Amino acid sequence: MLKVSLIGATGYAGEELLKILLLHNEVEITYIAAKVDGPKAISEIFQALKGRLDLVCDNFDPDKASSSADLFFLALPHRVSMSMAPALIKAGKKVIDLSADYRLKDPGVYKKFYGVEHTDSPNLKSSVYGLPELYRKVIKGAQLIANPGCYPTSVILGLSPLLKAGCIEDHGIIVDSKSGVSGAGRCPSPSLHFPEVNESFKAYKIGVHQHAPEMEQELSAASGRDAKIIFVPHLLPINRGILSTMYVRLKKAMSTKDILGVLKGSYGNEPFVRVLDEGVYPEIKYVANTNYCDIGAAAVDGGEAAVIVSSIDNLVKGASGQAVQNMNIMNGFDEKEGLC
Amino acid sequence: MLKVSLIGATGYAGEELLKILLLHNEVEITYIAAKVDGPKAISEIFQALKGRLDLVCDNFDPDKASSSADLFFLALPHRVSMSMAPALIKAGKKVIDLSADYRLKDPGVYKKFYGVEHTDSPNLKSSVYGLPELYRKVIKGAQLIANPGCYPTSVILGLSPLLKAGCIEDHGIIVDSKSGVSGAGRCPSPSLHFPEVNESFKAYKIGVHQHAPEMEQELSAASGRDAKIIFVPHLLPINRGILSTMYVRLKKAMSTKDILGVLKGSYGNEPFVRVLDEGVYPEIKYVANTNYCDIGAAAVDGGEAAVIVSSIDNLVKGASGQAVQNMNIMNGFDEKEGLC
Amino acid sequence: MLKVSLIGATGYAGEELLKILLLHNEVEITYIAAKVDGPKAISEIFQALKGRLDLVCDNFDPDKASSSADLFFLALPHRVSMSMAPALIKAGKKVIDLSADYRLKDPGVYKKFYGVEHTDSPNLKSSVYGLPELYRKVIKGAQLIANPGCYPTSVILGLSPLLKAGCIEDHGIIVDSKSGVSGAGRCPSPSLHFPEVNESFKAYKIGVHQHAPEMEQELSAASGRDAKIIFVPHLLPINRGILSTMYVRLKKAMSTKDILGVLKGSYGNEPFVRVLDEGVYPEIKYVANTNYCDIGAAAVDGGEAAVIVSSIDNLVKGASGQAVQNMNIMNGFDEKEGLC
Amino acid sequence: MLKVSLIGATGYAGEELLKILLLHNEVEITYIAAKVDGPKAISEIFQALKGRLDLVCDNFDPDKASSSADLFFLALPHRVSMSMAPALIKAGKKVIDLSADYRLKDPGVYKKFYGVEHTDSPNLKSSVYGLPELYRKVIKGAQLIANPGCYPTSVILGLSPLLKAGCIEDHGIIVDSKSGVSGAGRCPSPSLHFPEVNESFKAYKIGVHQHAPEMEQELSAASGRDAKIIFVPHLLPINRGILSTMYVRLKKAMSTKDILGVLKGSYGNEPFVRVLDEGVYPEIKYVANTNYCDIGAAAVDGGEAAVIVSSIDNLVKGASGQAVQNMNIMNGFDEKEGLC
Repeated sequence: MLKVSLIGATGYAGEELLKILLLHNEVEITYIAAKVDGPKAISEIFQALKGRLDLVCDNFDPDKASSSADLFFLALPHRVSMSMAPALIKAGKKVIDLSADYRLKDPGVYKKFYGVEHTDSPNLKSSVYGLPELYRKVIKGAQLIANPGCYPTSVILGLSPLLKAGCIEDHGIIVDSKSGVSGAGRCPSPSLHFPEVNESFKAYKIGVHQHAPEMEQELSAASGRDAKIIFVPHLLPINRGILSTMYVRLKKAMSTKDILGVLKGSYGNEPFVRVLDEGVYPEIKYVANTNYCDIGAAAVDGGEAAVIVSSIDNLVKGASGQAVQNMNIMNGFDEKEGLC
Repeated sequence: MLKVSLIGATGYAGEELLKILLLHNEVEITYIAAKVDGPKAISEIFQALKGRLDLVCDNFDPDKASSSADLFFLALPHRVSMSMAPALIKAGKKVIDLSADYRLKDPGVYKKFYGVEHTDSPNLKSSVYGLPELYRKVIKGAQLIANPGCYPTSVILGLSPLLKAGCIEDHGIIVDSKSGVSGAGRCPSPSLHFPEVNESFKAYKIGVHQHAPEMEQELSAASGRDAKIIFVPHLLPINRGILSTMYVRLKKAMSTKDILGVLKGSYGNEPFVRVLDEGVYPEIKYVANTNYCDIGAAAVDGGEAAVIVSSIDNLVKGASGQAVQNMNIMNGFDEKEGLC
Repeated sequence: MLKVSLIGATGYAGEELLKILLLHNEVEITYIAAKVDGPKAISEIFQALKGRLDLVCDNFDPDKASSSADLFFLALPHRVSMSMAPALIKAGKKVIDLSADYRLKDPGVYKKFYGVEHTDSPNLKSSVYGLPELYRKVIKGAQLIANPGCYPTSVILGLSPLLKAGCIEDHGIIVDSKSGVSGAGRCPSPSLHFPEVNESFKAYKIGVHQHAPEMEQELSAASGRDAKIIFVPHLLPINRGILSTMYVRLKKAMSTKDILGVLKGSYGNEPFVRVLDEGVYPEIKYVANTNYCDIGAAAVDGGEAAVIVSSIDNLVKGASGQAVQNMNIMNGFDEKEGLC
Repeated sequence: MLKVSLIGATGYAGEELLKILLLHNEVEITYIAAKVDGPKAISEIFQALKGRLDLVCDNFDPDKASSSADLFFLALPHRVSMSMAPALIKAGKKVIDLSADYRLKDPGVYKKFYGVEHTDSPNLKSSVYGLPELYRKVIKGAQLIANPGCYPTSVILGLSPLLKAGCIEDHGIIVDSKSGVSGAGRCPSPSLHFPEVNESFKAYKIGVHQHAPEMEQELSAASGRDAKIIFVPHLLPINRGILSTMYVRLKKAMSTKDILGVLKGSYGNEPFVRVLDEGVYPEIKYVANTNYCDIGAAAVDGGEAAVIVSSIDNLVKGASGQAVQNMNIMNGFDEKEGLC
């Protein structure tokens, strides 16, 4: 049994990760920590875990951590991860970081979108972007994984094969994404108060969301040239799930079947990507509580443009499930172990 | 046009009250105040009011208030109301208080449930409990109205006629109430964070909710003897609306028709109470955004017990709509003016 | 008091219209009809109307209708309206049709999207598209109003001023719209069953929705040339409200302030359009249950593109509220009467 | 690997059961059937199963069924189960019936509440009520399990220990239950149309629900005398979960601690019942998607009465999860296998 630890246990991604790990046959959770007032049973923090996980959550203790586990999940706020990861890496531990700290290869872009200097360039360089469908081989040998953001996972999986195949224009890509509220975290605020979200819907951070550069980095890698997107996130009055509707110009006319052919060709053997048939589009309910990414597509405008729709559960494929998928790959486990 | 003012404008009841008053043909909103950091357009606080109400909300200024309006609605936290009402009363203003401060006639009970000494006994004595269906005549001549609580409105309207008629046992009354989230106010907290409420449901404050003594006071008045209830409130994952399911023992066997007969006899001419026919029960959607209280009933247990179901919108009949209904009565307006 | 009638009273738009008309000071509802099994009190069909409207709903009777009212609202299925309107028009009645039957000026396009030949060309020619912000003057003198669709209202109001001003490219306009479920009507179906919609989200009818040609007709009129859109509607798990996110290419670079300036210039005096300030975007909750259309905008992509966001209540500004606004204009009433 | 089959695969309980069985390490799903127009991939019926279960669903074929599997889950409508079970029983198969057909030991009561004569008395007699916490030992050796109803599971688990211990009056027990919409099945109807349920709440079938006699049968068995309840179910605007609030009179005064003591004593070793601490009450979110039943309690009315609150997921502990728990017991598997 692999000994695993979760640092930053008190958010929604942390809770989801613990639930997944509890069902995983190859690991044992040996140590959990978070910024807390004092030691507290994790089942008091997450009443759903009562009777399922008998661990105490306390403030991070580097020595205890190091002696307890071999692989660490960091579900910490951005900026905090890069202050904790170096010591774990140095101690030879494997680290899967769910924050944004190791996702952007350019520290200048990181500073622009997260407001602080990047403080761990050495590990930033060697970290691997943990999207298995794109980077499975390097993930296998990596020590530090930058687990992708939720919006980027849905978007990159939907667009990469088409960019790689050179089918679509890499400028002016429109990404209209909609996310459930757990994506905004577990911290109460006026804008996330129940009556403010329920029965409503809104766009936010138009053109300035911090996930845009992460998408552009990976879409550029797929394209081989600078890709540019216009990204507008929206807040759905549901707990979990993301659906991204993407609008692209085709370099030459394609049918819906052609487009789906490119996607199916790319994802034919993927355990967690399902390319849907013509006329069928993703719905959040079909991927909620699973690690799947569903993708549908339609040619429009006489075949000169296409609409790509993708959907994931932001807490699973968009965070904790993908983290476990990465762990499975890194450790030679069945890639589907613990996941559905 | 009657000049009216709202003190405590920044909560959900305040917002609802402003919306109702804007549609009222006999009043003009002349002054609004609330505890704020500085003057702010009310349409910035409530974006829904943009273009509809062009007033600035600032901290309460007694002189400005007094010179601006003749009737004051107080939508203040409990304990704050009784510190503000006396001066307004002294200045000859009419006051409709939406807090609990003047609802409980016994200051000892007030202290027990609200945690502080009552500081305004004189006005407590002369205040009138603003449930028009029970106290219309005294409301007409009152200067200070204690606007009823939301849960109590739904419960008292459902049970009073049966207690008055002596049909039901006044001890061991079970009140199982369910409320939408706006009843808990506009202040964010972990337990009202969207993903914590959505797709869930819970009981809370079992046997210790501060609305229980208010119900018992009025049910005792109806019964002529001490009435005792067991009250369990629950939190519904919706924005607005209360449904109360009440279980009573009948003194002698009655049919559903008999029970409905007592209720219809009592509320035959009421503009805002609808007693439903046999086999039809209230649903929150039918009273949401209205000032109605719907009541249904069924005899059970061979006619020895009855289930009474009542439903209101907690922000309208349970707060701001009832406040306007009281204002209409106090000022000789059509009782339905501004309400639906 | 103007005598008004509603034909097709049993859908959500019909229910909403009755509620609005009940609060309107200048009209009296004198006759209602719908396809029913037999006469039934409207308050049995819509329990919310109990005690508020005491009319019987029966199958349409042309003679009774004609002798009862002077203005008719038709909230009928597409194709049925054009079979009923001619006789009413001939009898000199004013007609406001909430269906699509008189919206598309080209009968060929109508046939393509609604599947049947148009059977009333004469009235189609003289009918007026009932979007007051664009056609107020002709509405004033019209006898037959084609009340706009819900999606088109949100989209046309957001884009028209920019097309008229020649700021944006009229091809490749992306319209990503999201609607609450009442827009799909009151008829139960597997895909609208509560657990299928709740906590989910999906795109549908990608590139083939029947509202696209209606938008293109009006956007072309604004542009002076053929405008082309890519329209993807989505289903929100809420009862009411539409939010449309529109992506346009700017002919020459503009700032957010510039764009908002064009919109504010166009809608400065409109009673029901609110152009929001820079950095503020529409949210469905702010327009729900009102006749407002809120519009926000942001320049993106270095000022070469823009995102326009608009929001309405699909049952009010997107249907019944707009119908009443049209009635007000046609009859010289205050345009805001009965509306908020 | 045990070969298992599901007959009645197209409802919500069927879908949930398939998802659970897919994660179960000891079974293989070999045959599924349902009333369908023709053979159809199950992943087309439930898009969520795409890529996870590659079976065709066709109409029931007794020979195929018999030769394919050793244990059958019947998720059929009431009345249909008892027409199918006898042949399977005769063929020596184990059967777990999720319908009500074998739950009521008295065929007269069955007829009264389900409207038809019971047609399989022999198996009715030998069937075992599948509530593991009460009947684990007989379940172990049973061939035919009557899997309990969703409401009864929540209620019986909450009250049985207190009745067995003789603490509470067995007449006049009040059961106020609230259920999510999946409990009403997958068939669309006007009252389950999204906008009719969403943002609303109602009581239904007051005093006449078919689950009441099932509860009374088992509560009487616990009490040793006839137990009588007043049962009012309500419809929650959520997908899944039941919370039951029960009001009982205590035979002699007890504290909250006393009551919890009885419950904890009874359920101390149960893998799927969690008795909560004083002051903590169940919330649906903590049991959703799990097989747990959470129970909380409070003494009220000076210790003369008690409120018991219990919560389950109606599709898991209230249906498919409990069915798998029964299968585990019947086959000597780890009782928790496949469940969380």
